[in-house]
Amino acid sequence: MPERVTPLPVHEFLEGLAAKQPTPGGGSAAALAGALGAGLVSMVCRYTVGRKRFADVEEAVQRVLARSEELRGELEVAVEDDVLAYGGYADAQAMPRETEDESRAREEALQTALRASTVVPLRVAERSAELLELAVEAAELGNPYLISDAAVGAELAAAALASAELNVRLNLGGVEDAEFVRGSRERLEEARARAAGRELVDRATRIVHERAPS
Amino acid sequence: MPERVTPLPVHEFLEGLAAKQPTPGGGSAAALAGALGAGLVSMVCRYTVGRKRFADVEEAVQRVLARSEELRGELEVAVEDDVLAYGGYADAQAMPRETEDESRAREEALQTALRASTVVPLRVAERSAELLELAVEAAELGNPYLISDAAVGAELAAAALASAELNVRLNLGGVEDAEFVRGSRERLEEARARAAGRELVDRATRIVHERAPS
Repeated sequence: MPERVTPLPVHEFLEGLAAKQPTPGGGSAAALAGALGAGLVSMVCRYTVGRKRFADVEEAVQRVLARSEELRGELEVAVEDDVLAYGGYADAQAMPRETEDESRAREEALQTALRASTVVPLRVAERSAELLELAVEAAELGNPYLISDAAVGAELAAAALASAELNVRLNLGGVEDAEFVRGSRERLEEARARAAGRELVDRATRIVHERAPS
Repeated sequence: MPERVTPLPVHEFLEGLAAKQPTPGGGSAAALAGALGAGLVSMVCRYTVGRKRFADVEEAVQRVLARSEELRGELEVAVEDDVLAYGGYADAQAMPRETEDESRAREEALQTALRASTVVPLRVAERSAELLELAVEAAELGNPYLISDAAVGAELAAAALASAELNVRLNLGGVEDAEFVRGSRERLEEARARAAGRELVDRATRIVHERAPS
């Protein structure tokens, strides 16, 4: 059972990332970038709700806040899940393969672990795409004094999405279950479609320049 | 004196980001995303150096590693510096302005704090642009089994650069010292030119698909 990484001090998490050890790695870093983005979206919302000045968007911003906090929790869990998924794959690799039965059991365990390792970044991609939409809403509706935080949230969500997408595609290259591959690709395409390439990020940046207090 | 944030557990850092408190905010999150990217580049290098198989790139990868570790340290410091810079600005805002002298002193202190708040993301932009180049080198030269980590490093560096750029531009809008504004814009343009829009990130992704072990 690998050590949990989100209780580590930020400084030590960074040391662990840079070290010659497999986890935490790119999957966890991508999920953490998404969680950072969600944190920023939530902060923007919290500086907006409950104020007369923003009463007309109160309900919408409350909804964005509730959802961004859920996504932040799920993305933080994904930081750990990526570590666990790697552990499962390493365990399968360590299985004996002296007899044919052993080889077959090991191959099956590897395939199971590879599918599990694919599901984690797939969820990160889906959550990051949704977060990107929320970041744009926060930029459009939120307290203009924090608008740059909403745009940074959008940048981090987009980076998390692109990173998770890369990891999904690489893992799928080794998965033999054609139905799993097809289903995963469909979910990935849906997540990509929500983000519309760089369109949502660019929109967040444009809104900043329109709405930022001078 | 605000509490230092990088000794906080990752979980608490995220809570602080999401909370209705000004720091840590988008500037620290951007710097941290850059530091995460640097950590990944270093990991790729550490799984590459000292191996016969990669002897022909040993020297180049050692150089990338040494520099990415320096950048990781500097970006981690910037996470704290952004918190400190905000504190300086808040202190200036809290200065009395009942007399003309007081108003003038406060205005000068605000301008000094605003320049200090601009220098932090400017450094983050410069370091992230350099990191982006290192991430592409790590993807080109590094151990192909970790190539996706190099590409995630590139995505995070690009997000850190774009986020820092946004914060520099917004802060510069309030700076009165024309020479400081011009010098800062020049440094920002240089950093942007190094990243060449999305070109370096896209190159890292392409390399992944070329070099990833099947």
